[in-house]
Amino acid sequence: MSLDLLARRAARLSPSLPAAHFPSELAAGVISFDSGFAHPPLMPDLGECAIAAAGRYRGQSLQYSGRAGLLDLRESIAAQMRADGAPADPRDIMLVNGAKHGIELACRLLLDEGDCIAVTAPTYFTAIPIFRSFGVQFLEVTQDAEGLRVDELAEAIEQRRADGRALPKFVYDMPDFHNPTGITMSLARRRALLELAQRYGMLVLEDSPYRSVRFEGEPVPTLRSLDGGERVIHIGTFSKLIAPGLRVGWVHARKDLLARMMQLKSDGGSSAFMHRLVAEFCRSPAYTEHAAKVRNVYAAHRDRMLAALARELPDVKWTRPEGGYYVWLTLPPGVDGGELATNAARHGVNIIPAQKFHAGERPYPRNCVRLTYSFPTLEQIDEGVGRLARVMRSMG
Amino acid sequence: MSLDLLARRAARLSPSLPAAHFPSELAAGVISFDSGFAHPPLMPDLGECAIAAAGRYRGQSLQYSGRAGLLDLRESIAAQMRADGAPADPRDIMLVNGAKHGIELACRLLLDEGDCIAVTAPTYFTAIPIFRSFGVQFLEVTQDAEGLRVDELAEAIEQRRADGRALPKFVYDMPDFHNPTGITMSLARRRALLELAQRYGMLVLEDSPYRSVRFEGEPVPTLRSLDGGERVIHIGTFSKLIAPGLRVGWVHARKDLLARMMQLKSDGGSSAFMHRLVAEFCRSPAYTEHAAKVRNVYAAHRDRMLAALARELPDVKWTRPEGGYYVWLTLPPGVDGGELATNAARHGVNIIPAQKFHAGERPYPRNCVRLTYSFPTLEQIDEGVGRLARVMRSMG
Repeated sequence: MSLDLLARRAARLSPSLPAAHFPSELAAGVISFDSGFAHPPLMPDLGECAIAAAGRYRGQSLQYSGRAGLLDLRESIAAQMRADGAPADPRDIMLVNGAKHGIELACRLLLDEGDCIAVTAPTYFTAIPIFRSFGVQFLEVTQDAEGLRVDELAEAIEQRRADGRALPKFVYDMPDFHNPTGITMSLARRRALLELAQRYGMLVLEDSPYRSVRFEGEPVPTLRSLDGGERVIHIGTFSKLIAPGLRVGWVHARKDLLARMMQLKSDGGSSAFMHRLVAEFCRSPAYTEHAAKVRNVYAAHRDRMLAALARELPDVKWTRPEGGYYVWLTLPPGVDGGELATNAARHGVNIIPAQKFHAGERPYPRNCVRLTYSFPTLEQIDEGVGRLARVMRSMG
Repeated sequence: MSLDLLARRAARLSPSLPAAHFPSELAAGVISFDSGFAHPPLMPDLGECAIAAAGRYRGQSLQYSGRAGLLDLRESIAAQMRADGAPADPRDIMLVNGAKHGIELACRLLLDEGDCIAVTAPTYFTAIPIFRSFGVQFLEVTQDAEGLRVDELAEAIEQRRADGRALPKFVYDMPDFHNPTGITMSLARRRALLELAQRYGMLVLEDSPYRSVRFEGEPVPTLRSLDGGERVIHIGTFSKLIAPGLRVGWVHARKDLLARMMQLKSDGGSSAFMHRLVAEFCRSPAYTEHAAKVRNVYAAHRDRMLAALARELPDVKWTRPEGGYYVWLTLPPGVDGGELATNAARHGVNIIPAQKFHAGERPYPRNCVRLTYSFPTLEQIDEGVGRLARVMRSMG
């Protein structure tokens, strides 16, 4: 094996990115605003469901299964989508090992080395190395309060055309409670994006892990439901509503794309055991109750964080997410997010600066950081924001 | 999205390959000798382990986890390897979603479009589309009773050098109870393969799903243990010893390769829940008992199938596997395996002909078929081989 090849791949993957802090690795007293972990008291009791998977359904749960994954669970997902106002057929749904696995399969199907994709700036930081591993170029587009700036994307595409460069194969976005900015894309903006995709023959990768964690306001229809399923690959997951340790997500896409992604799915039908366990939970009365609790608890976390920010950091601006896990802070001009993150870590608060969320070369404001309110307790939220404020004052 | 791109990818993936018959899809009376499913009565009771994962370990099982997978399980795998005579450090082990996921990650790391890899002819049919999806060329090498013919491989490599063509990036083989031929590679042959790999700078992908299912004879050291871990990526799984529905396998490789594969692992730490469940089972007293039972039952299946073959098909030759799931039949000259499979299916026996196991263009004997004895009952083995004999006589 040539060492230069490994070195090239290594460079592509940016191995120097710091790893996330898993809860088990946190030192005593450290407050984690950095990663989208589940709040431990919200982890449901799946004992009965696990017993059903290991017992009554053993012959199926422990055997190989079809690549699309357990039909009972796909039916349940389709029913949940329909309740969300989106037409859905279980045959257009494939189960995957979490949303990131869906992103990877879309990349495996669609991308060749050197291809271009469009992403928001900032974007989901774990998706960046997945895209990079396929050797893509990034077309980065900023957001405003209505989400991805489609006008800016249209202009960039026209420029690429004028320059004789290939257009983006797809647009990757998180229209609901965007990670990291917390912004939800407006209906008008969604329609404009789909029209653009139609005009230039692009697909759209709609990554929507937080959709079911809405605190307030009316849901905006998914890109996929607005598009009729033609150009949109929709990716969902149970990581945020049930638990990330399950690794059960799904891809909802048109049949020809789904069929190819299924062929590229090297783990076959994934874990029939986990599918059964989740399917049992979804059809239990506890599920609705659990989902409501998740929304209420995370809404309270958000409120507590926004109140603490208003109290402690009057010079800072932030987004007000209607759901999801994240608040995006714009610090006063001249305050570097990376420096704040480093100093905050010394004072026992982990946050993630803007640097981590930018995929390409485009310059971006350095005075931004992401705060996650999902994992910490309400008391930790108060204490953590207080510490951040003290650190910022000490930097001033 | 350009349709020609999809068409090209589709051609690469050979979507025309027939799908496996899942047990739930089998019509009444149909006997399955076709796929490596688990024998249902051998599926262990994992209820207690599932309860532990969902209960005592909930905070960890339902949370995100590190990319290498649960340390307790990696330690257990390392201990099992050491008991098998192979040095192993849990830090050199990464958990994956079954062996095929390990194969894919190795491909993602090592292969570029147009690269060459060496495989046996015949080889594991599910690995073929994985390799094809990376756009590889196959260098196919036959086997004899001692396994992959290293002399033939050496000659083909020299020929490629003489022709100025790139050498194989890696050799893919299943040295223990090969799928589909059932052959176990001799110690001398393993040493010769490693020497060749060393000489030409190739890696070796050692896929060993059946290693723990040995019925008789002394285990031959793994390629990885003979090599000291330098050039061999070893892939293992719990699919064959515990249950395929778990989707828990592992990759044992040198640190630099493993670190890169971990970065390419898009599902993060896989399912912490399944890792805990399997770890609990591995350290329970039931595990050793279960493993012995699996070996005894499959040994009885093999014996019953070989006895039935001797009784019913005197004109056919077969391998005698010392473990694993498969017998490779060489039919009388002129009998086409594909035709036999088609006729047998009409008479309620599913088998897989040689065609399915050949990755490249190299001509091969058409008078071979694979029989799997893992799934059927002893009575079905008798009845199925009897039906095959009648079908063959009717073809004569």
